[in-house]
Amino acid sequence: MSTANTPAASKDVPPGGAFLFQEVGASPIVTPETFSEEQRMFFRTALQFSHEQMLPQADKIEHKDNVLLRELLRQAGELGLLSVDIPEAYGGTGLDKTTSLLLAEAMGLNGSWSVTFGAHVGIGTLPIVWFGNAAQKAKYLPKLATSEWVAAYALTEQGSGSDALGAKTKAVLSPDGKHWILNGSKLFITNAAFADVFVVFAKVDGDKFTGFIVEKDTPGFTVGPEEHKMGIRGSSTCPLYFEDARVPVENLLGEVGKGHKIAFNILNYGRLKLGAGVLGGMKLQLAEALRFAQERKQFGTPISRFPLSREKLARMTALIHALESMTYRTSGLVDARLAARDKSAPDFESHLLAAVEEYAIESSIMKVYGSEALWQLVDDAVQLHGGAGYIEEYPVERAYRDARINRIFEGTNEINRMLITGMLLKRAVKGDLPLFAMAGNVAEEMARGEKPQARTQDELAPQEVAAEAAKRLALHGLSLAAQTFGPELEKHQDVLAALTDVVMDAFALDSMVARARQAATDGKLDPVRVALIRTIAFDSTSRIQDRMRRALCSTLKGDALAKELGRLGTLDTFTPYDPAEVRETVMAAVESAGGYPFAA
Amino acid sequence: MSTANTPAASKDVPPGGAFLFQEVGASPIVTPETFSEEQRMFFRTALQFSHEQMLPQADKIEHKDNVLLRELLRQAGELGLLSVDIPEAYGGTGLDKTTSLLLAEAMGLNGSWSVTFGAHVGIGTLPIVWFGNAAQKAKYLPKLATSEWVAAYALTEQGSGSDALGAKTKAVLSPDGKHWILNGSKLFITNAAFADVFVVFAKVDGDKFTGFIVEKDTPGFTVGPEEHKMGIRGSSTCPLYFEDARVPVENLLGEVGKGHKIAFNILNYGRLKLGAGVLGGMKLQLAEALRFAQERKQFGTPISRFPLSREKLARMTALIHALESMTYRTSGLVDARLAARDKSAPDFESHLLAAVEEYAIESSIMKVYGSEALWQLVDDAVQLHGGAGYIEEYPVERAYRDARINRIFEGTNEINRMLITGMLLKRAVKGDLPLFAMAGNVAEEMARGEKPQARTQDELAPQEVAAEAAKRLALHGLSLAAQTFGPELEKHQDVLAALTDVVMDAFALDSMVARARQAATDGKLDPVRVALIRTIAFDSTSRIQDRMRRALCSTLKGDALAKELGRLGTLDTFTPYDPAEVRETVMAAVESAGGYPFAA
Repeated sequence: MSTANTPAASKDVPPGGAFLFQEVGASPIVTPETFSEEQRMFFRTALQFSHEQMLPQADKIEHKDNVLLRELLRQAGELGLLSVDIPEAYGGTGLDKTTSLLLAEAMGLNGSWSVTFGAHVGIGTLPIVWFGNAAQKAKYLPKLATSEWVAAYALTEQGSGSDALGAKTKAVLSPDGKHWILNGSKLFITNAAFADVFVVFAKVDGDKFTGFIVEKDTPGFTVGPEEHKMGIRGSSTCPLYFEDARVPVENLLGEVGKGHKIAFNILNYGRLKLGAGVLGGMKLQLAEALRFAQERKQFGTPISRFPLSREKLARMTALIHALESMTYRTSGLVDARLAARDKSAPDFESHLLAAVEEYAIESSIMKVYGSEALWQLVDDAVQLHGGAGYIEEYPVERAYRDARINRIFEGTNEINRMLITGMLLKRAVKGDLPLFAMAGNVAEEMARGEKPQARTQDELAPQEVAAEAAKRLALHGLSLAAQTFGPELEKHQDVLAALTDVVMDAFALDSMVARARQAATDGKLDPVRVALIRTIAFDSTSRIQDRMRRALCSTLKGDALAKELGRLGTLDTFTPYDPAEVRETVMAAVESAGGYPFAA
Repeated sequence: MSTANTPAASKDVPPGGAFLFQEVGASPIVTPETFSEEQRMFFRTALQFSHEQMLPQADKIEHKDNVLLRELLRQAGELGLLSVDIPEAYGGTGLDKTTSLLLAEAMGLNGSWSVTFGAHVGIGTLPIVWFGNAAQKAKYLPKLATSEWVAAYALTEQGSGSDALGAKTKAVLSPDGKHWILNGSKLFITNAAFADVFVVFAKVDGDKFTGFIVEKDTPGFTVGPEEHKMGIRGSSTCPLYFEDARVPVENLLGEVGKGHKIAFNILNYGRLKLGAGVLGGMKLQLAEALRFAQERKQFGTPISRFPLSREKLARMTALIHALESMTYRTSGLVDARLAARDKSAPDFESHLLAAVEEYAIESSIMKVYGSEALWQLVDDAVQLHGGAGYIEEYPVERAYRDARINRIFEGTNEINRMLITGMLLKRAVKGDLPLFAMAGNVAEEMARGEKPQARTQDELAPQEVAAEAAKRLALHGLSLAAQTFGPELEKHQDVLAALTDVVMDAFALDSMVARARQAATDGKLDPVRVALIRTIAFDSTSRIQDRMRRALCSTLKGDALAKELGRLGTLDTFTPYDPAEVRETVMAAVESAGGYPFAA
């Protein structure tokens, strides 16, 4: 699964993490503006389902109506929304990953539904798609594609969350060799109350972490009571109990001792999708907050007219634009890697997993950035609602509670922050990414007081420079940390986390600037896009300087520290701007569109 | 109520907003270290009640057990916890305001209880204490002091939240002159379901905003159904309806058309208390999060050992210390203003209100800073809990939902942000605060590239400089904004809000540094306090520079802007430090104390 195995056809596709090493716009990127007509149509179909079938039932969903959830899944299945990631041979449509993410975005309008849907088509079904044998695929996938059977995924245990491989559930082969006997329990299992098929992890002979397909009627297997959760209350979340549960030997998933391959690949893909999933919710909440602010009057004026309200609405829009630009850029990279592959070939799935893993850094960024952008957005939306934002009658109250889980599941944001810079360094050490060589150049540039130069002299030149500066700072900080701490660096979580924030801002700025330039018609930049990028760039500039100071203070001491801190200013790319003008440019577009102004 | 009326005895007490104009430690301040034995004993009694009587019932409270709430109020009454703000002549104890805030802190361990308690002793009872006539006081206060009668306060309406005076409820005198006839409705009224006495605002003859005391059995007055809220679910929150409700003329509170005096004074005092109220919750949640992190293991290690966990716990502690330092400093100022007053004099209440109003700037800071510090803290606490933080079984889930209301009520944080700098400027224009003269000096210093110097050369000298720099920047920014916009400045909400953040950081740093130096024994600073201040100072430094850039970009253009931005660096007081050492110094104290290390 290393990049070395990629065939000639995908040689031109930038590897994972490349954004940090290439200049803004070095390669064309996939953006909502480049979607194919098929992708757009699929997205509209899915969005229409969400708006017309699902959202009107949101209150019923909230009260845990499992019959309704299954009915909605059935309807989704009829529209082909459950089979995007299932190969054609097994009743699916095997569409590209950009379409899969567009689907996640369209299903993201309601937290409970999004999680239910994702658990079924994603973590529940994909382990069988990717690791099932032909018999397992033939037995389960066609039924999962229609939701005749609903899927769930059982990894977490009491005592093992972030430490997923620390699971204690055991599996031993029965004396007659016909069954695996499972004992143990699982915690926080989505769809548990009504799922038919569970992918369950257990340790064979005490230490071989292994996946199993467990059907609901398995003797010795029971589903515990519903958890009472802060949010996503409409989704089912229960513990599972295994007491000498007898799982037929043919339901072993993949190989004994290779369960971690399933779990890690599922996590990679889940993180890739999370950014898209939260996008849907963000766009809906922006539109709702705008409508509320336009209708609600205080002091005789709609609150949407007050500058502090407009500042919030503009920031919400900018966050959406940043996340959207990163999300589809990344799915586009995965698709590009697979473009030359034969989807019906027996090794297609392994190439798919390799392509997804290739962009694990970007996927973790989308997980962290996306969950935090959503969280910031719903918090602003609650605040815009005032007292009403605290009352269940208003959808924003639910969205606020729902949003919080995204920073916790699919690996906490803390774990993902360490992974992002951790993976960058690991690939650098392997020689896959030229981190140390480039950091050397950066250090020399900084010593000379050289600032990056914009290659394109347009209105976004200062933001291009900001993106380049962020990359240089991240590389420089990572290189210093690696030199200082060597293999001990992974213990210095605060350094990794601080530098991850710089990497994330670099990816956001790079993606937004590249997108705006690509979208320019006759070389003319869209002023709304420019304003959104300036909004993000202003916030990033302060954050990047703050994080670099933190990272440097945790890495160096004395004169070395003083020297590096002194050089930071060289790459402080703050650019004066007119906040009111930027805000009003964004808000004119938002008010005219009734929400996010760049509909796919 | 202006400062000009203060008698000779309180001439030495710094006026409201003085912290921005005086040097760190210019006057001694009240801190937990200076509390009297009586204050400490009262606090311990109150805290014991919370821990032993109230907290064990938290789950019952959560399910809206109004009988239990009344019983807890009764028990609190027996301990004298309801009568602190009631004069002795009417069954109260009329204690100092520091004690009143200590009480709020002790009652703050649970959101629903804190709000129920506060609505009774604060907004429900105080309007009668402050504005009731002798007959009203004699009739209501002794019964409110025991909670034989429970009080509520009804200001907000559908359509008037921040715009409180925009209320539409009407009052007209009955033809026989014996009753006020009220028509209209109120929204979000705490304690409504079981209160006996409601302070209600209505407009007499369509425009004269006026307070009334409404008893629960008043004909034409009904209480609507409970709201379903995000948090503080154990508290009662209902609408009130008035349909030709007949309120006896003797229940007019204060004067016709002077209801705003009641409402504004109640808001001032509520904001003063909010900081203390959230402190109690913050300390409890820190202790709980620490305990969870010490018990919860991942990868074979208690998560309390991971640097990112420790960073969170240390930050939580620092936020508590900052807020605590500001809170009791301010209550101490109010008390000092009243020290020479005769509590039994007929004009004592008007002096009390003047003293509270004098520190309206500080009170609004505590409201904003406190509610955001709590919010940051419970968010960190949820994240430390991982998946468990999302489950109702764990108290942190409830604390997270409860906390959110604090940024909304008592005036949204947006309104308070505008008030803080708005009041500073208003007092400056009146000549009560030397803002423009001092800003002139600051501008000259900045033009000369002069940095503030520490007066005391101890370990906190860099943080003293940071505090002085923050003050200078705030004054400079306010002065520039006032010059640029004149009376139009109030429309530039983003400028006011950005500069308020600088003012708040200045107050926090100033209060912490002054407190640590006061607490030093034999001139030796406590290293834990120093570490906490460094933690806050590091965060502030980045925020202050960010906010100043924002404010300047919104105020100036072209060369003037470039000149001012260029000078900002002069007052960038970032000081290199060793984050791990700071964090571990804090954490050693926190782990040893099992929570916040400075118990009162």
